[in-house]
Amino acid sequence: MSRFLSARYRDLTPYTPGEQPLDRSYVKLNTNESPFPPSDEALRKARENARSFERYSDPECLSLRRKLSGVCGVSPDEVMMTNGSDEALNLAFMAFCDDESPALFPDVTYGFYEVYARVNRLPYEIVPLREDFSLCLDDYRGKKGTLFLANPNAPTGMALPRAQIRDFVLSRPDQITVVDEAYVDFGAESCIPLIRECPNLLVVQTFSKSRSLAGARLGFAAGQEALIRDLNTLRYATAPYNVNSFTQALGEAVLDDEARTKENCRVIGENRAWTEKRLKEMGFTVLPSCTNFVFAKTDRMAGAALYRALRDRGILVRHFDTERIKDYNRITVGAAEQMQALIKALREILG
Amino acid sequence: MSRFLSARYRDLTPYTPGEQPLDRSYVKLNTNESPFPPSDEALRKARENARSFERYSDPECLSLRRKLSGVCGVSPDEVMMTNGSDEALNLAFMAFCDDESPALFPDVTYGFYEVYARVNRLPYEIVPLREDFSLCLDDYRGKKGTLFLANPNAPTGMALPRAQIRDFVLSRPDQITVVDEAYVDFGAESCIPLIRECPNLLVVQTFSKSRSLAGARLGFAAGQEALIRDLNTLRYATAPYNVNSFTQALGEAVLDDEARTKENCRVIGENRAWTEKRLKEMGFTVLPSCTNFVFAKTDRMAGAALYRALRDRGILVRHFDTERIKDYNRITVGAAEQMQALIKALREILG
Repeated sequence: MSRFLSARYRDLTPYTPGEQPLDRSYVKLNTNESPFPPSDEALRKARENARSFERYSDPECLSLRRKLSGVCGVSPDEVMMTNGSDEALNLAFMAFCDDESPALFPDVTYGFYEVYARVNRLPYEIVPLREDFSLCLDDYRGKKGTLFLANPNAPTGMALPRAQIRDFVLSRPDQITVVDEAYVDFGAESCIPLIRECPNLLVVQTFSKSRSLAGARLGFAAGQEALIRDLNTLRYATAPYNVNSFTQALGEAVLDDEARTKENCRVIGENRAWTEKRLKEMGFTVLPSCTNFVFAKTDRMAGAALYRALRDRGILVRHFDTERIKDYNRITVGAAEQMQALIKALREILG
Repeated sequence: MSRFLSARYRDLTPYTPGEQPLDRSYVKLNTNESPFPPSDEALRKARENARSFERYSDPECLSLRRKLSGVCGVSPDEVMMTNGSDEALNLAFMAFCDDESPALFPDVTYGFYEVYARVNRLPYEIVPLREDFSLCLDDYRGKKGTLFLANPNAPTGMALPRAQIRDFVLSRPDQITVVDEAYVDFGAESCIPLIRECPNLLVVQTFSKSRSLAGARLGFAAGQEALIRDLNTLRYATAPYNVNSFTQALGEAVLDDEARTKENCRVIGENRAWTEKRLKEMGFTVLPSCTNFVFAKTDRMAGAALYRALRDRGILVRHFDTERIKDYNRITVGAAEQMQALIKALREILG
């Protein structure tokens, strides 16, 4: 830290992204990426259709929003594209939280929520998940503030049904609920269809997981026009040209092949079921996941030790060093051969 | 605006980017883009070398920083890559301004400085340029705060010599100076060589202008390691994966061909001289530019009227509707044929 850094940020703990090691080739099951690359056809279309790079990218992402809105069943003015879904989340913290409306989120959830609250110097309240890691919306009833609800939640992998979220959102019309659906395509119900009846609902999604574009950086927020206008006001005050031209074209090309996205999600679901079964056979406790990862622990080895033992064998998973979940590891569900390698390594480690 | 938007931002006026109209084909001289696309060779390399899109992009941009640091004559730890230079500027406002250190900048400069100060709710002081639009560093001496100095300045196009900036920065060792060098390659002196002796200097550059990558979104900050660490703390608390994989690879490929960048800048310089001469022959007042644009006015027509007359003829320039510069238009220097079209249209309009 330099002596020039503002006192505001001297005790800021930034988000820790999953390792991206370059020292050797790993079976990489630590950042919930897709094992499936975008299709050659999508890459070809993106190259052909991207606006010339010497021109600024379209700050409105108009063509991409038109296509996306068709896929999602909303209007183009009900979506805003972002540089990954993280940008949409950050803008939502800025727009919809303040001293009158603190941020609310669980103790075990996406680690960036607390970072966004802190970097924007916003008040926040952490509401613990239940003993079994389930999220109970009753625990938020009567609390004033903007709820950030990862559904499915991470790193637990557990989801709430849409009907429960609908009742909750309708029950607090003067408070915003932000539903972060990074993993929704792997087996949960999207809340985007609720937008029409809920002016206080914002849904955030990413192209990083089910749509295989983590490296292209693309996400979006969906909500009624007035909310999207608020977010655009802040986007135009921070990063008007937030999404580059190649990514806009690649996003469109990927949306042209929803069948591929669905098929990839189906395969991940199969691989998840296979992995869960093997882990349980080996005595692991595995939380019920509807995502592209499983959250699992074994009584036979501490979470951190297991993480290190896997790493030594060339398999990267994600371990979080916080008290409540330190026994667990979050394991991305990848291709069949990656999961076979994982199970083989676990058998070696646990004997 | 929705009723949910935080009161903090209800009177926020976002930045207005230059028009990107889709209704017809324009001679586009309004956003200071390069008329020269990146080379086919650079595009080919970028396609070959970009990390697979299903993986996250490298949050450290390590390979790109290594190459860039070689070009700039600094160490890799003295640069940080950003999603356009705007992101670097926003992070610098966050990191180095607060109630104890207000932002300082001129009345006529890059419009985003005031937006960044306001969106981050930072105090700021605007110090008018001199009558002839020159920036006098003496006007900032004795003022406490972080100076944002566009050099060359926009939209005036005028620059200060490096030696003057050096003396100024050394004279206020407890205050940061941020030098925004978006246009430096077109004819001014970069302050990057001053970093070694100035721990209180941050230099920001972009790949959007001389390097033809406006649509790819790439910029960087250069400064001593401690300052770069401060910026990285905030970057990891807002957007760790800020630069997508394709852009990282394309940035590297463009840096492999510095001769092309220099040749493009030379041609722009020639076209600027040609355009200035024609404009002066027609009675325009033209500020002395060392950028890829000229800032010009004529007594024969108001700035806004001239802007509209050019637009009607298919030529887009940039007009700013603020009192002090409303007689002027900012005209990007493009390819020879674009400048010929501009002069032809002006002759028609002014008779």
